[in-house]
Amino acid sequence: MIRVGISGYGNLGRGVECALKQNSDMKLAAVFTRRPPETVKILTEGIPVYPASEIAAHKDEIDVLILCGGSATDTPRQTPEYAKYFNVVDSFDTHARIPEHFANVDAAARGSGHVALISAGWDPGMFSVSRLYSQSILPEGRTYTFWGPGVSQGHSDAIRRIEGVKNGKQYTIPVPEALESVRSGENPTLSTRQMHRRECFVVAEEGADKERIEREIVTMPNYFADYDTTVHFISEEEFRREHSGIPHGGFVFRTGVTGVNGENRHVIEYSLKLDSNPEFTASAVVAFARAVVRLYKEGASGCKTVFDIAPAYLSPFSGEELRAHLL
Amino acid sequence: MIRVGISGYGNLGRGVECALKQNSDMKLAAVFTRRPPETVKILTEGIPVYPASEIAAHKDEIDVLILCGGSATDTPRQTPEYAKYFNVVDSFDTHARIPEHFANVDAAARGSGHVALISAGWDPGMFSVSRLYSQSILPEGRTYTFWGPGVSQGHSDAIRRIEGVKNGKQYTIPVPEALESVRSGENPTLSTRQMHRRECFVVAEEGADKERIEREIVTMPNYFADYDTTVHFISEEEFRREHSGIPHGGFVFRTGVTGVNGENRHVIEYSLKLDSNPEFTASAVVAFARAVVRLYKEGASGCKTVFDIAPAYLSPFSGEELRAHLL
Repeated sequence: MIRVGISGYGNLGRGVECALKQNSDMKLAAVFTRRPPETVKILTEGIPVYPASEIAAHKDEIDVLILCGGSATDTPRQTPEYAKYFNVVDSFDTHARIPEHFANVDAAARGSGHVALISAGWDPGMFSVSRLYSQSILPEGRTYTFWGPGVSQGHSDAIRRIEGVKNGKQYTIPVPEALESVRSGENPTLSTRQMHRRECFVVAEEGADKERIEREIVTMPNYFADYDTTVHFISEEEFRREHSGIPHGGFVFRTGVTGVNGENRHVIEYSLKLDSNPEFTASAVVAFARAVVRLYKEGASGCKTVFDIAPAYLSPFSGEELRAHLL
Repeated sequence: MIRVGISGYGNLGRGVECALKQNSDMKLAAVFTRRPPETVKILTEGIPVYPASEIAAHKDEIDVLILCGGSATDTPRQTPEYAKYFNVVDSFDTHARIPEHFANVDAAARGSGHVALISAGWDPGMFSVSRLYSQSILPEGRTYTFWGPGVSQGHSDAIRRIEGVKNGKQYTIPVPEALESVRSGENPTLSTRQMHRRECFVVAEEGADKERIEREIVTMPNYFADYDTTVHFISEEEFRREHSGIPHGGFVFRTGVTGVNGENRHVIEYSLKLDSNPEFTASAVVAFARAVVRLYKEGASGCKTVFDIAPAYLSPFSGEELRAHLL
């Protein structure tokens, strides 16, 4: 039995807890939280909740620790710190800062002789794996990544920070014509605006100036200005009824050519349609946590990414079973 | 530069030769053939064509040998034999006999200290990898594999063996309603007939009994009897014009649930649309050949499958480059 610790008990942490119940070779051993432990009620009976400050004292009770904090301020600090005591997995998703995070975590994990795996999930994660496989197989071609339809947490937060906004949610939506053009192998060159549009559902405060709110949203630099953005004002009740989920997904395409003169075209498509972004991410992270424990038992150490893990390591089944039934 | 040998110069061998031109870290070193070498004209100038019988004499000129023979009688014999002298890759695709083939190749490769990789391509190959990842991430769910639209070589051969048939080609076609049902997450239970249909294009010999030919096709056990099969009789000219390609492709789906009570549904879809089945297979095999050479340099030996290869090994780019640009 692989003993798993969860650090941080929000949506992702709860998702990990649920995913562990689906994997009979793994079990939850402890949850660590920065909140007062007695205020944190978890789903699994009989499992201790400890204060994060005492985490190092529990290092012998845990085979792998899954870090479920945010990528802005939590994991950049926590993953290298906890890699001193544990095998760790995180879902760090600030793409631009991955090299720096990798270096920090690698130094810590090498120093302690542990295995760390960063940026598990779906993007970074399975989308990255899909890009790598397909680009290696079709070196002459183009890669396209579309996100959505789904909720962007960052964009929803940006809406909620606007004065007069009581609640808000933003959906990122791939433009269907762009998807079809890529899927048909036309190899289009697509601008930011041509690939995705953004749809916002906003609950305004009583008496707020909706025209100003809409203008502030659609002109917001980086977040909305480069996209076709639609803003819908809805009631608090409709918001609760229709927009409480956290769905997401997307598409990775590789289109490429082979042959004597590139005369044959090929399209590789990988897509996800997810009812719950954090629960799917958690499920991926749990599979990679299994791989981390195996690598550690083989004597490996240092920081890894999804690129470094042979797919067989994710599965509870043996090589014989996999070759007989899945190959 | 990775020096690659090709054993067997048919559609797959030519596909490997073309794929090597797209990979600047690899080059064709020699072609081996059972035909008289002087009758084999290859696409690359200045590369020797040797008789297969002399292959062992060239072992020091080749870093990895790619076996491009058939799975019925060639690779079951050749892959273990050539693994005595070379690192080897094949695309052995008789799913039911993979465990036996693996054992034979593993014994030979361990004995000689080489690395062998069997069953590279797309199914077995990338479809297998897709099944493994998605099943590991969503353990509570169902996997569906659809093939086509595309040409089945085995079924086309079966048609051509019927008396009165001059030429024939068979397309395997996923049933659109089945695809949509799976894609929408309905988790249907599908019979063989509900998943695929078969479409045959036949050139009959002058004066042949077309009714009998059609009856023999649609009632043929194993090949056609369990499917809805359509037979079209066409002219030799139309056959040449419209049915000279070898397109193929297909879909792997994993549908699964997560959450406290399985309340959230997820759909993972991987699909291929290929103008040329042998050239895409060849491109995949070449990427795995790169991985085989790397593993050999690291001191590995024995038989591997696509399940045992970390994705990073397929790419000519370094870990730093991959983390910075693809993760």
